[in-house]
Amino acid sequence: MLVFIVSGGEKEAGSFAELLAEYSDENDKPYVIGVDAGALWLVRHQFPCDLAVGDFDTIGEAGVALLEAQGIPLLRAEAEKAETDTEMALDWALLNGARSIVIEGGIGSRFDHSLSNVSLIYRCLRHGVPCVLQNPWNRVRLIGPGKTRLKTRWPYVSLIPFSEVVRGITLDGFYYPLREEDLSWGYGRGVSNEPLRSDVSITVQSGYLLVIESRDPKSRDPEHGDPVHQDP
Amino acid sequence: MLVFIVSGGEKEAGSFAELLAEYSDENDKPYVIGVDAGALWLVRHQFPCDLAVGDFDTIGEAGVALLEAQGIPLLRAEAEKAETDTEMALDWALLNGARSIVIEGGIGSRFDHSLSNVSLIYRCLRHGVPCVLQNPWNRVRLIGPGKTRLKTRWPYVSLIPFSEVVRGITLDGFYYPLREEDLSWGYGRGVSNEPLRSDVSITVQSGYLLVIESRDPKSRDPEHGDPVHQDP
Repeated sequence: MLVFIVSGGEKEAGSFAELLAEYSDENDKPYVIGVDAGALWLVRHQFPCDLAVGDFDTIGEAGVALLEAQGIPLLRAEAEKAETDTEMALDWALLNGARSIVIEGGIGSRFDHSLSNVSLIYRCLRHGVPCVLQNPWNRVRLIGPGKTRLKTRWPYVSLIPFSEVVRGITLDGFYYPLREEDLSWGYGRGVSNEPLRSDVSITVQSGYLLVIESRDPKSRDPEHGDPVHQDP
Repeated sequence: MLVFIVSGGEKEAGSFAELLAEYSDENDKPYVIGVDAGALWLVRHQFPCDLAVGDFDTIGEAGVALLEAQGIPLLRAEAEKAETDTEMALDWALLNGARSIVIEGGIGSRFDHSLSNVSLIYRCLRHGVPCVLQNPWNRVRLIGPGKTRLKTRWPYVSLIPFSEVVRGITLDGFYYPLREEDLSWGYGRGVSNEPLRSDVSITVQSGYLLVIESRDPKSRDPEHGDPVHQDP
């Protein structure tokens, strides 16, 4: 079962529709969990929502009533709980046989939540369940030792060490080559590499490596924010 | 010497002006480095800019000419370099005697850049130079073993393990208490704690812990993004 977890961070209806279609085609129909405001977002954009999870402090009782009126099952938590709402959804997915997880809207303005979601990817990896964390400008994976093949259409692929030292990294199909080299905390050497084709690979000898496909927001004012590039 | 590194990510002129005034008062005048588009942002908002650093691919030759016309010294790099522009500025700061560093606009839409900047904080910590990474909604620090006192006016303080396991964490002055407990990768337990007063402390026995002061963007539509709270 492929599980989409739709959280409260940044997302775009258009790209989510594409993603849903892409995965619905390859696999069976994905199971979609809306997290607090994410559930309302799904309903308002007429996407399926198979389960709504969270303390619902963001959408309040009016939002909860709206979800119930749609017949969406609710998994409701106390506001004062040890885990985040997204983590609750992830727990549910792992306990109910998810074989692959996409956290849509898992990156947003609250950097602590975004970082906590990166940490959740690690839990999935330890459970042997591939997990992708994304928003419209970034798609984050975590890889361990071995060779990982990646199909990508994004202009940048950044490699950031999750472990203190990631050893023996070899890249195939990237503009900036690496051959059995190490990346460590404290240095930005792996940032903004560029895939030369849609099918690339990354081999790691030891350690955990974050692989981030990214693009610059097109509408961003270059004086105010990130550089503006064209997404090839 | 306190060094401000102003990068291309999210920032607000008002809060930067306050920050500059706050630090200029406590210490001597800070040294301000503009990174690529960050330098132009400083000039356009009539802030001081003592040095401009980067490959300047974002602001282009017109932007560079504008900086030169203002008499700002430039440290210019090749576009194809191993380090990021912000890292270049940090290298300069560490080599030139910075005793404290603030990276303003170090968090933005490009999540790979934001994460790479988190990694730079680790380098500063290893050099014994305190470093803060921030944008208008988040302020990120990294702490190691020992007791860290923190003055904060932010509604949330999240604790996220940077090391795989951070052992023996004890909090003083927080709503959700911790007493000689561990936080590990994969779990969100330390997220969205709330300081009970402006003066709190965090004690760590071993490992590195990210401390993130954060607030929700006030103007954010709760259906679209993060929850909306009032900043107390």
